[in-house]
Amino acid sequence: MSVQRAVQLIEAIAIPPLDERAMAAARARQDRLTKPRGALGRLEALSIQLAGIAGQATPRLAHKLVLVMAGDHGVAAEGVSAYPQSVTGQMALNFLAGGAAINVLARQTGARVVVADLGVAAALPTRPDLVDAKVGPGTANLAHGPAMSHDQARQALQAGADLFRRELATGVDILGTGEMGIGNTTPAAAVAAVLTGQDPARLVGRGTGLDDAGLAHKVEIVRRGLAVNTPDAADGLDVLTKVGGFEMGGLAGAMLAAAAHRRPVMVDGVIATAAAMIAVTLNPGLRPYLIAAHRSAEPGHDAMLAWLGLEPLLDLGMRLGEGTGAVLGMQLADAACRLLAEMATFDEAGVDDRGGE
Amino acid sequence: MSVQRAVQLIEAIAIPPLDERAMAAARARQDRLTKPRGALGRLEALSIQLAGIAGQATPRLAHKLVLVMAGDHGVAAEGVSAYPQSVTGQMALNFLAGGAAINVLARQTGARVVVADLGVAAALPTRPDLVDAKVGPGTANLAHGPAMSHDQARQALQAGADLFRRELATGVDILGTGEMGIGNTTPAAAVAAVLTGQDPARLVGRGTGLDDAGLAHKVEIVRRGLAVNTPDAADGLDVLTKVGGFEMGGLAGAMLAAAAHRRPVMVDGVIATAAAMIAVTLNPGLRPYLIAAHRSAEPGHDAMLAWLGLEPLLDLGMRLGEGTGAVLGMQLADAACRLLAEMATFDEAGVDDRGGE
Repeated sequence: MSVQRAVQLIEAIAIPPLDERAMAAARARQDRLTKPRGALGRLEALSIQLAGIAGQATPRLAHKLVLVMAGDHGVAAEGVSAYPQSVTGQMALNFLAGGAAINVLARQTGARVVVADLGVAAALPTRPDLVDAKVGPGTANLAHGPAMSHDQARQALQAGADLFRRELATGVDILGTGEMGIGNTTPAAAVAAVLTGQDPARLVGRGTGLDDAGLAHKVEIVRRGLAVNTPDAADGLDVLTKVGGFEMGGLAGAMLAAAAHRRPVMVDGVIATAAAMIAVTLNPGLRPYLIAAHRSAEPGHDAMLAWLGLEPLLDLGMRLGEGTGAVLGMQLADAACRLLAEMATFDEAGVDDRGGE
Repeated sequence: MSVQRAVQLIEAIAIPPLDERAMAAARARQDRLTKPRGALGRLEALSIQLAGIAGQATPRLAHKLVLVMAGDHGVAAEGVSAYPQSVTGQMALNFLAGGAAINVLARQTGARVVVADLGVAAALPTRPDLVDAKVGPGTANLAHGPAMSHDQARQALQAGADLFRRELATGVDILGTGEMGIGNTTPAAAVAAVLTGQDPARLVGRGTGLDDAGLAHKVEIVRRGLAVNTPDAADGLDVLTKVGGFEMGGLAGAMLAAAAHRRPVMVDGVIATAAAMIAVTLNPGLRPYLIAAHRSAEPGHDAMLAWLGLEPLLDLGMRLGEGTGAVLGMQLADAACRLLAEMATFDEAGVDDRGGE
C-alpha cells in the first residue's frame, strides 16, 4: 500500500455519531430497573454511552481487546528515564510470556492481549504472537529535531488502524489501549504541552522514577523539543511527527479505526491519552467514543483528560501504562453493560416502584 | 444458645493483629516485580494489607462471599424513604431470583451471594436459599425510643457471626457486606452522628430519592432519635440498640467473625459503614481488616470513612447498597492479589532493573 493511499485511509475515516435512539432506549430501561433512579451513579451514564456507541439498547462487551504497542524514543539519550532503553524490548517479550501486569489483569478480565512492535530499538525475534509493524528502530531525538518524518507518522497511524481491523475479525467489543516505551512520558508531555497550551513544568512528571534533578532536566528537554520543532497544534499529524512516538501513532490509528466500527475505546494513562489527543485532533468525531479508565499519578494527566473532556473512572495512583488502567476500566464498563442488560425491571420482579413517579 | 452465651461469644471474639512478616514478604516481592516500584499505586498497598490479613506472602481471593442482610425499620413510619416498606421483602425475593444489581455484579465477579432475613417486616417464604435469622418484624421507631432491646442487638450480632462461620466451611477468602432495608439510611445517619459527633444535617442524605422537604424532615427525625435515646458513643451495643438496625447488627457480627478468622472485609456504602463503625466500637482490632470499597453519593459517607481511617477505592457516585460497591471493590482486591502472585520478577523475566538500586 502506498503512503499516499495510507494518508487517505486514515484521514478519510468516517466516524458515525452516537446512536441517539439506542441511548434513549438504554436510559428508559435504566429507569425501570429494580433500583432507585440514578443509584448506580456513573455506571448508568457509562451504560448509556456504550449503548450509543454500539447502536444497541443493551450492548455487551464479550470480546475485550488490549493492543499493547511498543516503541523506543530517541529522546531517551537525554537521560529522561530511570531505566535503560533495553527494557522496552525485554518487556515486550515479558508481555508475550504472560508475566507482566497487563497479562495478569487481562487474564482476570478475560481480555485478549495483542502485542505489536511499532518501533522498538532492539531487533525482536520473529514469532507468530508478536505483530511486526516496526516503523523504525526508535524515533529520532525530539530535543534536536522531529521525532519522525511525516511518512513515518502516517505509517504508524495506518499500522494501528490495520491491526485493529485485523483483530475485528476475531471479535472486538471494546478496545483497550496499552503501550511500552522507555522514555515515552517525555513525548507524551510534549504532546500535552502543544495541545493544551500549558507550561511543560505543569505537565512533566517523574515517569518511572526520576529524582528532582532528573525531573527539572526532563522539563528542559520538553521545552527544547517544542522550541526546536514548533509543532502546529491544529495539525495532529504534525504534532505526532515532531514530538510523538511510533506507539502513539499506532494507538491513535487503532482508536480511529475502532470508532469507525462503533467500538468504544478505553483510554489508559498519559501515553494513551496523548495518542487520543492526537487522534481527536485528526478527527474530532472520535471524542464521544473515548472512556478514560483512570487518573494516572503523572501530574499532566488531569490537564490532558480535561482537554479531552473526560472524567476518569478510577483514581488509584497507578502509573504503569501497558494498558493496566484500561483493563481495570473495562471491568467497570462490562459491569455497566451487564447491569443494564441483566437486572430485572420493577414489573418483572414484582417490586413496588415509589409512588407518584 | 442462651443470650448470655451469645454476649460472651461476640464480645470475646479475639482478632489477631496483621501478620508483619507476611506483609514484609509481600512488600519485598512487590519491589522485584517487572514494573517501576510503586507504579501499581494503591493496588500495591492493598496487596500488602491483604497479605497481612491472610498471614500469607501471596494471598489469593478464590472464594468471594457477599452477605446480603435484609431488615426493616420502624422509623420508616416517619416517611423518611421514597419507597414503601413492602419493597424490603420484595427485593429480598429479587435477590433470590438473581435479578438485582448485586446478583449481576456477583455473577461477573464470581462471588457467592447469601441472602439473610435479619428482620424483614413481611413474612418471607421458607426456602433453602434464604437464611432465616429474623430477630423481629422490623425494628421499633427510633424517633420514639430504642430501635430494639439489648437482647435483640446481641441476637443480631450473633446471627451475623454464626452465618459467617457457617459460610466459612464452603470457602470464604473475602467478605463483602450487603444489605437491604427501606428507611435504613436514617439509622445509618444516626449511628454516624453519635460516633463522629457531627451534626446530623451534615450527615443525612436523600437516600433513595427524597426531595428538599423530605430531607429536612429526615434530619429532624435523626435529631429526635438522638435526643430521645441519648446513645452512649463509647458503647457499640448501646448505639446499635438505640438507633441501629437488625441488618446492621448482623453485618457487624459477620465482620467481627471474619476478622477473627483472618478474612478481609470489603465495606460497602453507608449502612455497611455504620455497621463497621459499631463493630469497631465493640472491638477496635477489626479496623485493619476493613477495606472501603467506594465512596457513596450519600453526603455522610466521607465523615464515616474518615472516622474509620479508610480511603475508598472507588468513587462512582453509587448509592444503591446491596453490596454492589463491595463487589466492585472485590474485583480490585482480587486484581491486587493476582498481580502480587502472578507477575514475573525482573530476574525471572530477564528484564534489566534500573541502575543504582
